[in-house]
Amino acid sequence: MYSTEILTKYADLVLKIGVNLQKNQGLEIACPVENAYIAEIFAKRAYLHGAKIVKIRWSCESVDKINFENASVDALKEVPKWFVDSKNYLVENNFCYIAIDSDDPFAFKDIPAEKLFAVQKAKSKALKKFSDSVMSNGIRWCVVSLPSKGWAEKVFPNDADPQNKLFAEIIKTMRLNSNDPVKEWQAHIFKLESRAEFLNANRFKYLHFTNSLGTDIKVGLADNHKWLSAKELAKDGVGFVANIPTEEVFTAPHKDRIDGIVYSALPLSYNGQVIDEFCFKFRKGKIVEFSAKKGYGTLKELINTDKGTLSLGEVALIGKNSPIAKSQILFYNTLFDENASCHLALGKGYPTTVDNGEKLSVKELKSLGVNDSVEHVDFMIGTPDLNVHGIKEDGSSILIFKDGEWVI
Amino acid sequence: MYSTEILTKYADLVLKIGVNLQKNQGLEIACPVENAYIAEIFAKRAYLHGAKIVKIRWSCESVDKINFENASVDALKEVPKWFVDSKNYLVENNFCYIAIDSDDPFAFKDIPAEKLFAVQKAKSKALKKFSDSVMSNGIRWCVVSLPSKGWAEKVFPNDADPQNKLFAEIIKTMRLNSNDPVKEWQAHIFKLESRAEFLNANRFKYLHFTNSLGTDIKVGLADNHKWLSAKELAKDGVGFVANIPTEEVFTAPHKDRIDGIVYSALPLSYNGQVIDEFCFKFRKGKIVEFSAKKGYGTLKELINTDKGTLSLGEVALIGKNSPIAKSQILFYNTLFDENASCHLALGKGYPTTVDNGEKLSVKELKSLGVNDSVEHVDFMIGTPDLNVHGIKEDGSSILIFKDGEWVI
Repeated sequence: MYSTEILTKYADLVLKIGVNLQKNQGLEIACPVENAYIAEIFAKRAYLHGAKIVKIRWSCESVDKINFENASVDALKEVPKWFVDSKNYLVENNFCYIAIDSDDPFAFKDIPAEKLFAVQKAKSKALKKFSDSVMSNGIRWCVVSLPSKGWAEKVFPNDADPQNKLFAEIIKTMRLNSNDPVKEWQAHIFKLESRAEFLNANRFKYLHFTNSLGTDIKVGLADNHKWLSAKELAKDGVGFVANIPTEEVFTAPHKDRIDGIVYSALPLSYNGQVIDEFCFKFRKGKIVEFSAKKGYGTLKELINTDKGTLSLGEVALIGKNSPIAKSQILFYNTLFDENASCHLALGKGYPTTVDNGEKLSVKELKSLGVNDSVEHVDFMIGTPDLNVHGIKEDGSSILIFKDGEWVI
Repeated sequence: MYSTEILTKYADLVLKIGVNLQKNQGLEIACPVENAYIAEIFAKRAYLHGAKIVKIRWSCESVDKINFENASVDALKEVPKWFVDSKNYLVENNFCYIAIDSDDPFAFKDIPAEKLFAVQKAKSKALKKFSDSVMSNGIRWCVVSLPSKGWAEKVFPNDADPQNKLFAEIIKTMRLNSNDPVKEWQAHIFKLESRAEFLNANRFKYLHFTNSLGTDIKVGLADNHKWLSAKELAKDGVGFVANIPTEEVFTAPHKDRIDGIVYSALPLSYNGQVIDEFCFKFRKGKIVEFSAKKGYGTLKELINTDKGTLSLGEVALIGKNSPIAKSQILFYNTLFDENASCHLALGKGYPTTVDNGEKLSVKELKSLGVNDSVEHVDFMIGTPDLNVHGIKEDGSSILIFKDGEWVI
């Protein structure tokens, strides 16, 4: 369907810039069976880059849907120990982990939200050790996307060949059209890192977001917070980029210091369901009121997953002129949509967004204000008229974003 | 590609007659990603028959091949504990297990035989507990086949649509063209069981095989041996049919009482490689000489896998007029080719082929003459002029097969 040349560039970018695969290292790729061809290309390229072994973790959304439609909640909730072990195995053996996301955003729209949540919660709980490892960079990982038929048809319902059209857009956002995408990404990462360095140098106490939707929220930042961008260091000291594409600069909010109201700027696709036109009112870091014009039940389940889903784990800044924002496409996929707009995340914060956070316990992280949860769900708040002020300890203020774009 | 009607019949036959899925029972299906569509149909039908949960164990021969070509023997030999546990989980939780075989018989023809064997041996060793459970009917399992592109092209290299042609042949052998395949199979099984009952009633000491290829071998039968056919009882007391199609009536040879020479009647496809025109000379149950015009190295590795691969674990009788034999097609797939011809198997014997064998230890089984090994590999010996005599303890003889067909 797509040319081998472009797919090879795709694989090479993810292997080199994404997980930064080292010689004699294992690689696992989570791949939908519908896009099995890419697993072959990844495997071939990975060995050229020196992989020790390549394993594939296959998935199939159609079968998942049949299971959700037919099996009991109890049967679906059971996560075998071997499955948990199979994930922890990756961390214990320092595998690189690439997840290829082709999810149809509406795949599970007919499944009751409570059922989806009960299962999701059981899985998240069972796999907490693994997701904690991933979020504290215990392994080098990268999430990328490739169109499935179902997903592409949702994004371009009226196109003759939606899958090719969506892939063409993904190619643009991943800068794969250039002669040397790896070099492009090195330059791009440099720019993002400079912004993070500016924010770190200013040691803001909180950020103040305002726009015409009605958003007026002060998001306190965690003690010892650290702004990060695309490139991070894994525990083994080797750099990697966890999302491709990525345009964001992000850090940890202080879970007890969030006050005001925030309105969603884009729909949120979660668990195969869509939540839209929603808002949260925060007081002292907790959601005290919320509403949603679409997907209210799903949103209610989401924020009540555990204590942590009532607060925030991430604040991220993205200018409205990023390639994804400029495409004006609603991808129904967080990987892209989160890079189209400033966003916040309900749930767990990244330990890496505070100094030496990888080495701190959950309790120590919490004392700095870093939120904990089994979930981490981004939602978009950036509009073309969003302003963001950074407020320092002494009350002085610097304008960071004006009309949805960086001004620093 | 194939009609939903025929695929539904296919799935129903395997679920009802094959694994005989019971209400509220788990089901795992081993399925190649290339044939993912069948997993969906199986899952839907399984729930209609009352399945508790359906899990898919995906495989991809193309990726396996890339791994064999590029990874070291040591990397390939590593079988993670979680993987072993994932198999034993099926037995511990009384899952039904369906394996859909679409293997390309020549997929691994360019991989050195020693490499394939070292890996195969490590896997068989790691999974011995599971394969022992399967062979002693610790779970209800069924192996069936569905064409892949690669396999079909090998069987029908000159056909415009080999996959459809191969599926049409498989449909015939599975009797799916009838109005009620389940009923057809009930009648077929009854006939096979009657033959097994005749053989059991005669308590033969050994079988004497002769034909014009030069085969002249006396295969002693294990003490307390039991002839089995299609239907077996699993440990939970529920019947199942482990292979569809199946035409054979089979039992355990006595591992120390095999003498003479036996010639292969068909090529053997093993580990993606083909062995042809081979013969074995046995003395007191052990191979003492062997030859092969094709695949000698592979055969040598195979018979030297362990002590057990130098002896036999199965003797099976199939008439030359079975639908598969009559099709005159070489399927390059044991499931079909073993049902085209009388055969023997190198390696492990089925505990179920002696009285109460499921309850006996390996040591007890061995003392009855049942062979043990990490392998079990069928090879075909039946020709259109094969005669088989059954010889009793008192030396009296009954002609069982004349010119390749049952005479009882």
